[in-house]
Amino acid sequence: VISKLPQTGTTIFTTMSALAAEHGAINLSQGFPDYSCAPELIDLVNKAMLDGHNQYAPMAGLMALREQIAIKTEKLYGAVYNPDTEITVTAGATQAIFTAISAVIHPNDEVIMFEPAYDCYAPAIKLMGGVVKSLELEPPDYRIPWEMVKRLITNKTRMIILNSPHNPTGTILTRHDIDELIALVKNQDILILSDEVYEHLVFDGQEHHSMARYPELQSRSLIVSSFGKTFHATGWKMGYCVAPAHLMQEFRKIHQFLVFSVNTPIQYAIAQYLKDENNYLSLPDFFQQKRDHFRRGLEQTRFKLLPCAGTYFQSVTYEDITDEKDVDFAIRLTKDIGVAAIPVSVFYRKGTDKHVLRFCFAKEQETLDKAVERLLKV
Amino acid sequence: VISKLPQTGTTIFTTMSALAAEHGAINLSQGFPDYSCAPELIDLVNKAMLDGHNQYAPMAGLMALREQIAIKTEKLYGAVYNPDTEITVTAGATQAIFTAISAVIHPNDEVIMFEPAYDCYAPAIKLMGGVVKSLELEPPDYRIPWEMVKRLITNKTRMIILNSPHNPTGTILTRHDIDELIALVKNQDILILSDEVYEHLVFDGQEHHSMARYPELQSRSLIVSSFGKTFHATGWKMGYCVAPAHLMQEFRKIHQFLVFSVNTPIQYAIAQYLKDENNYLSLPDFFQQKRDHFRRGLEQTRFKLLPCAGTYFQSVTYEDITDEKDVDFAIRLTKDIGVAAIPVSVFYRKGTDKHVLRFCFAKEQETLDKAVERLLKV
Ligand SMILES: CSCCC(=O)C(=O)O
Ligand SMILES: CSCCC(=O)C(=O)O
Repeated sequence: VISKLPQTGTTIFTTMSALAAEHGAINLSQGFPDYSCAPELIDLVNKAMLDGHNQYAPMAGLMALREQIAIKTEKLYGAVYNPDTEITVTAGATQAIFTAISAVIHPNDEVIMFEPAYDCYAPAIKLMGGVVKSLELEPPDYRIPWEMVKRLITNKTRMIILNSPHNPTGTILTRHDIDELIALVKNQDILILSDEVYEHLVFDGQEHHSMARYPELQSRSLIVSSFGKTFHATGWKMGYCVAPAHLMQEFRKIHQFLVFSVNTPIQYAIAQYLKDENNYLSLPDFFQQKRDHFRRGLEQTRFKLLPCAGTYFQSVTYEDITDEKDVDFAIRLTKDIGVAAIPVSVFYRKGTDKHVLRFCFAKEQETLDKAVERLLKV
Repeated sequence: VISKLPQTGTTIFTTMSALAAEHGAINLSQGFPDYSCAPELIDLVNKAMLDGHNQYAPMAGLMALREQIAIKTEKLYGAVYNPDTEITVTAGATQAIFTAISAVIHPNDEVIMFEPAYDCYAPAIKLMGGVVKSLELEPPDYRIPWEMVKRLITNKTRMIILNSPHNPTGTILTRHDIDELIALVKNQDILILSDEVYEHLVFDGQEHHSMARYPELQSRSLIVSSFGKTFHATGWKMGYCVAPAHLMQEFRKIHQFLVFSVNTPIQYAIAQYLKDENNYLSLPDFFQQKRDHFRRGLEQTRFKLLPCAGTYFQSVTYEDITDEKDVDFAIRLTKDIGVAAIPVSVFYRKGTDKHVLRFCFAKEQETLDKAVERLLKV
């Protein structure tokens, strides 16, 4: 067979988690917590199963869950989405992103994105015959150079992909970015795919600039989020997409043939759990405490901390330690020091190496302490 | 936005299930049971969650589950699949089918399929720029005219899609079909996508002719199955694909960017549950009893039964009752008589109407009796 994605190997997440397991390293690579989700959530899933909710959910998702998503989105961002026509529950945010790209990208359409970038955007674009137009951003701030973005726009530009809070860099879009974006897309036939899976993880009292806040952006945006990230249950594979009806209609055409519907008992559980807003409003504090604790530890090491305004990822540089490539250094750290991280060069399609590593701090304090202890030996 | 799938409306399953709910009709349309899955399975899922298995599973699926799939496949069909490189767990069979087509169909590739057909094949082919070459089969036997298939083959033919036991018709491939298929693909560069989601539902002591039984076919086949169908839990959305390593490698390239991984606790539960082979070997008897009971009831009505060798679907014709279109008749039956069925014309892209309705008999005996009682009034 001729490969549709000839460049694709195994994702870094699989590679690093396997290497960490093999060497008994503390796994701060792949983004998932090492503590359990709320026992209440598990109870709710079990109850739904015992109540017999084990057959197909509606194609777009359980109405009770879509309603809660609408309530949350309006409460947080002021945008009113119709659960009937503008919200679809997906098998994780990755499925939502793939589906959104599949639904609107035609052959030769151009998609603007920024690197470093989460690794699922570009393959989906290519699979649909689209063309990736990307700009590489620079540490430590990874600011988007809007003047350069403007120059990338052609009459084939169909979509811009944004991701805030940003994986892997931990940056967030600012009000300035939003103003630039609004000016950029005004009077243009350009859609926005907004990956907001870390929407609840913004620190230091800053606010999350969801596309849903700004009518000029909301009206052209497919916004993706993740209950796996939000509720510490990445293995439950539950996310969603919200978009204006004319976009959601196309999204659902793909969704219904790609997966048809998603796990029923988990939808029942999350619909119930979302009713207590404290279950998500408490998250910034919860994670900020972890970030601060981890940063205080890392400050004792020879690594240099980059800013972290959101997400549960802390990036560091290591110029003072070695001039090794980040991939080699990450492998060595895992094997010799016993801490696994993600080398950020893998988030650049060209492998651009800025000597940055990404640590996941969605871990027990004890785990973070043990990791710091080991990293002190570097 | 310009639609990628302009012809696509809402699937018949959504439409009929909604109509059934609205009119309080007995829902024999969409294929799912009205009884619960095994309490043991629910316990196993709950146990997995309580044991803390709530984070990402490996991309290709839990190894313990892949191993059980390998054991089952070898036991039933004699084929040896390597769990490491030839088996991937998916979010239901629909995701497996979409992924398989996405992985190997390039623009202008031709795909041979037969109609009536489950509705997700053609849209996936079109989305990849492929060309659907289909043959319409005729009731009551829906036999594949192999001479005509042969004439469809060109140097662009990339894949044949087979589905046995067959939804919606309840037919199964015979040894004769297999011989014809082997002769057809011999020395040709043609892949097989084999939708075997009803593999365990073959009646009257006949055997399921899995592609995995025949090395000449197995070596070029992506075979898809479904735990939702097999274990009466369609809402758990868990299926899988097995294929030789060179095909599975391409499958996984798409899978990892389409969904990355699937529900972890349910994978733990099914891995355990598969260890008792009686959990699937008992299925033909279980469903044959339902089929026989339902057929005895329908024989009292004015509907004419078509054969049913496998699946949990019973088709009927209704020439003696009305010459209405099957869609109109199905809607009227739902509204006026209180029984929802699927009009089989929706499984033909051209809407070919042979006046056939499909009833799902994966229901409690009481439900089937009540449905027959109502259908007697027609
Ligand atoms: C889907 S595995 C990757 C999880 C994640 O979001 C990350 O580690 O960046
Ligand atoms: C994915 S909903 C359809 C279920 C099914 O297989 C059928 O009714 O044919």
